[in-house]
Amino acid sequence: MGNRQSIITLLTDFGSQDYFVGAMKGAILSVNPAAQIVDITHEIPPQDIEVGAFNLLAVYQDFPAGTIHLAVVDPGVGSARKPILIECGEQFFVGPDNGIFSWICEREGGGRAIHLTNEAFFRHPVSPTFHGRDIFAPVAAALSNGIAVTEFGEELNEYVSLDPLLPAAAGDGSIAGRVIHIDHFGNCITNLTPAHFNADAAASGAKLVVHGHELTSFRPTFAEGAVDGNDLFCLLGSAGFLEIVARNSSAAKVLNAERGQSVVVTRSR
Amino acid sequence: MGNRQSIITLLTDFGSQDYFVGAMKGAILSVNPAAQIVDITHEIPPQDIEVGAFNLLAVYQDFPAGTIHLAVVDPGVGSARKPILIECGEQFFVGPDNGIFSWICEREGGGRAIHLTNEAFFRHPVSPTFHGRDIFAPVAAALSNGIAVTEFGEELNEYVSLDPLLPAAAGDGSIAGRVIHIDHFGNCITNLTPAHFNADAAASGAKLVVHGHELTSFRPTFAEGAVDGNDLFCLLGSAGFLEIVARNSSAAKVLNAERGQSVVVTRSR
Amino acid sequence: MGNRQSIITLLTDFGSQDYFVGAMKGAILSVNPAAQIVDITHEIPPQDIEVGAFNLLAVYQDFPAGTIHLAVVDPGVGSARKPILIECGEQFFVGPDNGIFSWICEREGGGRAIHLTNEAFFRHPVSPTFHGRDIFAPVAAALSNGIAVTEFGEELNEYVSLDPLLPAAAGDGSIAGRVIHIDHFGNCITNLTPAHFNADAAASGAKLVVHGHELTSFRPTFAEGAVDGNDLFCLLGSAGFLEIVARNSSAAKVLNAERGQSVVVTRSR
Repeated sequence: MGNRQSIITLLTDFGSQDYFVGAMKGAILSVNPAAQIVDITHEIPPQDIEVGAFNLLAVYQDFPAGTIHLAVVDPGVGSARKPILIECGEQFFVGPDNGIFSWICEREGGGRAIHLTNEAFFRHPVSPTFHGRDIFAPVAAALSNGIAVTEFGEELNEYVSLDPLLPAAAGDGSIAGRVIHIDHFGNCITNLTPAHFNADAAASGAKLVVHGHELTSFRPTFAEGAVDGNDLFCLLGSAGFLEIVARNSSAAKVLNAERGQSVVVTRSR
Repeated sequence: MGNRQSIITLLTDFGSQDYFVGAMKGAILSVNPAAQIVDITHEIPPQDIEVGAFNLLAVYQDFPAGTIHLAVVDPGVGSARKPILIECGEQFFVGPDNGIFSWICEREGGGRAIHLTNEAFFRHPVSPTFHGRDIFAPVAAALSNGIAVTEFGEELNEYVSLDPLLPAAAGDGSIAGRVIHIDHFGNCITNLTPAHFNADAAASGAKLVVHGHELTSFRPTFAEGAVDGNDLFCLLGSAGFLEIVARNSSAAKVLNAERGQSVVVTRSR
Repeated sequence: MGNRQSIITLLTDFGSQDYFVGAMKGAILSVNPAAQIVDITHEIPPQDIEVGAFNLLAVYQDFPAGTIHLAVVDPGVGSARKPILIECGEQFFVGPDNGIFSWICEREGGGRAIHLTNEAFFRHPVSPTFHGRDIFAPVAAALSNGIAVTEFGEELNEYVSLDPLLPAAAGDGSIAGRVIHIDHFGNCITNLTPAHFNADAAASGAKLVVHGHELTSFRPTFAEGAVDGNDLFCLLGSAGFLEIVARNSSAAKVLNAERGQSVVVTRSR
């Protein structure tokens, strides 16, 4: 144990205008001054657990084994929702028990969850409105110092899970997906993967139907879109999901789509 | 002396779209490559010293002793306003002498101020428009290397102070406070504390009057608000001030309030 | 070779709402866990290579020798544009071969360019849409570990250059410049320097003509502008370029100017 240059990532819905993120970092550095702190994003829409879950799912595998991910999108702060720590995929996840880590556990095939009850690792007094600073940050920092997972509390038999991310096929072979995230460039990231729709399927007559548009074109890169930017197509995004995109323009605007927009794969007849 | 993993925090009104914050970090790392740099926020409204002062007040105590806080909200850059360093509360504060640190000194009961005049610690040539990069950052970095406070210039007998943050009671027992900051979630943080209004006072008939609304409800957490989000109430925020909030929605929108909005505590009659 | 506390800066058009920047940092830290990562900005307007090039030009000299600058504004990702590494001015630049580094090479008088072809340093599989994570970040991290520049690929005889940043004088002595960047405060940064227009030239009758305004006033600091904020004047900005500014207000709003706005120096007759 001692000061270790462990990586602690932060993902929150705190925005960047206030002292909140700085407070969490101060709380971490007060426990482990050598922590390597990395911001994933603080621009998750307020209280939107799914967008937080998606962005963490998209990035955790880019970090080395042993990384500690601290995620605070926490509409239930101060209520009965549990503070938890999950160990899975050789990484650690610290935050509220509201499902924000469940898609990672789903992909990794489960994980060990601890209910954070050992107040010796909390910052005191614990504000009932800011567990990010007073519970999650100091626990993550103590973990980064080498404290054993079992020191933080008792193992949990179950934790909150979101609905599964990946859609299942319906009886007629169609698959009802949706836009799970719209990125900074207006690319519409879906919860579909190449197992649901790909170039071969497109060649066999399958289509992607989204807000009145029928997409049949599957291309490897943005550069293959028409220059005018109104040419919608599908590509395999860097997070492993299908994205509906346009070259150098916002597919979300062309589609007039928002997060949650239905995206249906129809089979040929 | 030498390279030390000291913490240097940054708080500015520079925004995040330009090279300004990066320039300050480069200037710091040129002097102390091992500095642990932490962003508090760069989204202070341009030239708004009070919002800068409030956010730094809300967060400095979360950092370990010896932390160096660099704050640049500096409408007077290039004028006669002094560059200063203040040592108080076992921490260090570097920035313009415009009051941005005075609420911290008020809380800590004073501090030692140095007028930064030793140009040996500046980056040259000093731009008359960017003291953040050319004076404050290299001085903070030299301080983080262990240079003694007295090396940077002469001690000052006085420094600029903002009006006191905490309001005093009027003759009739009422207290005229205000909204000092509206956070990312729309919570209205006031300059009132539980000494001004609390659950006992509410039970005795005291009220919080803000923009035509009378608040009598004091609750410990957001989770106790009505789900529809129009239920305004008062809670003790994580910075130690009273906040007017609504559950999972923006109290500022419900109130139609802006920063500076009057918040009056009236006693029962 | 080994873990070294080298500085790696990041400049992108990725914004801060998604997992993209975090993914690049994870990829860097997977190769060099001790890298000192510094964000310049992630708010370059999408695909705007010139704004990226300007901001990097304005800041690279503030970093110590040996710093590695990673710049990803990459509309051609996945196309035939080359991934490159440039060594110049005792620093390193990693990114797409689209001109984003050419103003730095212009100032430094050239540099050595390497075509990044050695896939042993890439993250696999390489996403055709995210070379920032899969090529540029791991290459920058390997470079920070002390790998020799020549290990990454073959030297290039030429690389893509933007049009020169600095304008030349026309036959009548006038100089046609433009607004190259509008900063967070609304200051209009031009591609003109004091060699094009300065206080002596103003005293001799030269003027700066921009969007119907004639500027003849050259002042050292913001504090010398009129308090009402409508008083436009010219100053030498912290990046070494002339800026059109107003005191504590947005010159861009007063001028109703956008990036690219023509700024002409006219000589006296």
